[in-house]
Parts: sequence; C-alpha cells; structure tokens
Amino acid sequence: MTTWSSWTSGKLRDLDPSECLELLRTRSVGRVAFCAEDGPVVLPVNYVVHEGDVLFRTSPHNSIARHVRSRPAAFQVDEIDDFTQSGWSVLLRGTAELVEDVHDLPPEGRPVSWAEGARTLFVRVPGRTITGRRLYPA
Amino acid sequence: MTTWSSWTSGKLRDLDPSECLELLRTRSVGRVAFCAEDGPVVLPVNYVVHEGDVLFRTSPHNSIARHVRSRPAAFQVDEIDDFTQSGWSVLLRGTAELVEDVHDLPPEGRPVSWAEGARTLFVRVPGRTITGRRLYPA
Repeated sequence: MTTWSSWTSGKLRDLDPSECLELLRTRSVGRVAFCAEDGPVVLPVNYVVHEGDVLFRTSPHNSIARHVRSRPAAFQVDEIDDFTQSGWSVLLRGTAELVEDVHDLPPEGRPVSWAEGARTLFVRVPGRTITGRRLYPA
Repeated sequence: MTTWSSWTSGKLRDLDPSECLELLRTRSVGRVAFCAEDGPVVLPVNYVVHEGDVLFRTSPHNSIARHVRSRPAAFQVDEIDDFTQSGWSVLLRGTAELVEDVHDLPPEGRPVSWAEGARTLFVRVPGRTITGRRLYPA
C-alpha cells in the first residue's frame, strides 16, 4: 500500500455483450473516436441504437466526416457516479460506414442532434464488437 | 426542416484553452484514447491535472500501457445535461509519456484509482493542445 493508493477500491467486472447493448441503449450522448494523422480524436455526439448498431449524424465538412468513412472507429458511452466512485463503460469498435439512403431508416433509427448546424451525414458504427466493464462501489 | 430534425437546437461555441483547463480540473474520471493496430480505443480512467498536464495510472500489462508509451494519445472529459440538452466537452491531445520517477510528483499530482488492481504505471498526457466546446441549451 503506497501513500497514493486508495484505502478501498472497487471491483471491476467485464460485461457480456447483451448487457453492453442494453446499457448502450440507455444514453443519448456518446463519444465517437477516430484516428487522425496526428493521433486519436474523441468527440461527443447524439446517437441512437438501431438493430444493434450505433447511428449518429454529423456535418459532411468536419473532421469526423473526413476520418470515419469506411475506416475503423470506436464509440464509447459510460455512466460515472462520483459519490459512490462506481459506474460502467461500454465500447463499440468497428468500421464506420455512411448511411446511403437515410429514408430507409425508420424514425427510431434517426438520431436527433441537440446542437445547431446542418448534420446531413448519417454514420453507422456496426455493433459486432462490443465490450464493457462495470466498476462496483468499494 | 426534415422530420428528424429537432425543432430547436442549442448553440455550440468553442472554449478557449484557459476555460478548457479550468473545466478539465473539475472532473475525476476522463477517457484516454489511443490508436491500436485495429483502430481507436477509448477507456475511462481516474486522473488529476498537475501543472497543466493530465496524469493517470494504469497497469503495466494492459492495452493502455502497450499503446501510449511515447505515442499520440487523447484525453477527453465532458459534462452532459440530458434535461437541458446541453453540456461541454474538452479534448487534450499529445504524445503520452511515462512518469519515470513518481516520487518526484507531489501528492496532488498522484491520481488515485477507484478500481482494484495494481496500477503502478503513471502516464502523463501533456496539456499543450487543448480544445473544447460548450453546447448551450436551446
């Protein structure tokens, strides 16, 4: 025990994919990550889960649009409780793809962005690789 | 206005670096991102801000340790208010480095992890490139 360790610490457990998907559905803002030329970038976006995939909208002219077309991306959500020092985190990883015809999406598959701006590009991150962990209170 | 747009949307404004740093100091859990061979990874960690840099601890044997040694990393924090559909997000980008002698760090520079496990590796993400945005309620 060093002087900078906590006296108590919470147990960390892996979540199974079905629990990850269930937790993924409970949030409305997640974080899309991509690898730019000079390293990783993480930006929050509104999203929905549709048929197990994450769907979010972005502008066709921004850095997300430049870097996620048919390239590996990650999508992360979590819930942290500062008081009990516990929470969970879920990570979806896959090759992001543009939704060619958004009119094929049912209303529940169309994310609504809280932020201003023309976010006409719909991006899908497939939900095939999903992992997560839960940290229990100490 | 399409049927899947919000009727109202919040204004999005860039934050200046000093405000980003101030907000970065208000949280205790952030998300470290790195580029693995098969794409980006985002994982939550406890952290502290010391002399403008982010410091966090990890195990020497996990994927964070394998990928952040002297390589580009990102560190993201945010605060989201689902009710007012507003919030802020801050992103630090830089080359992560290991802290060689942790005994040189003052107590306030030593992050405490909530989770169990031997997190003996201290990692610094320098705070030179810091950006952020605030989304105001609609």
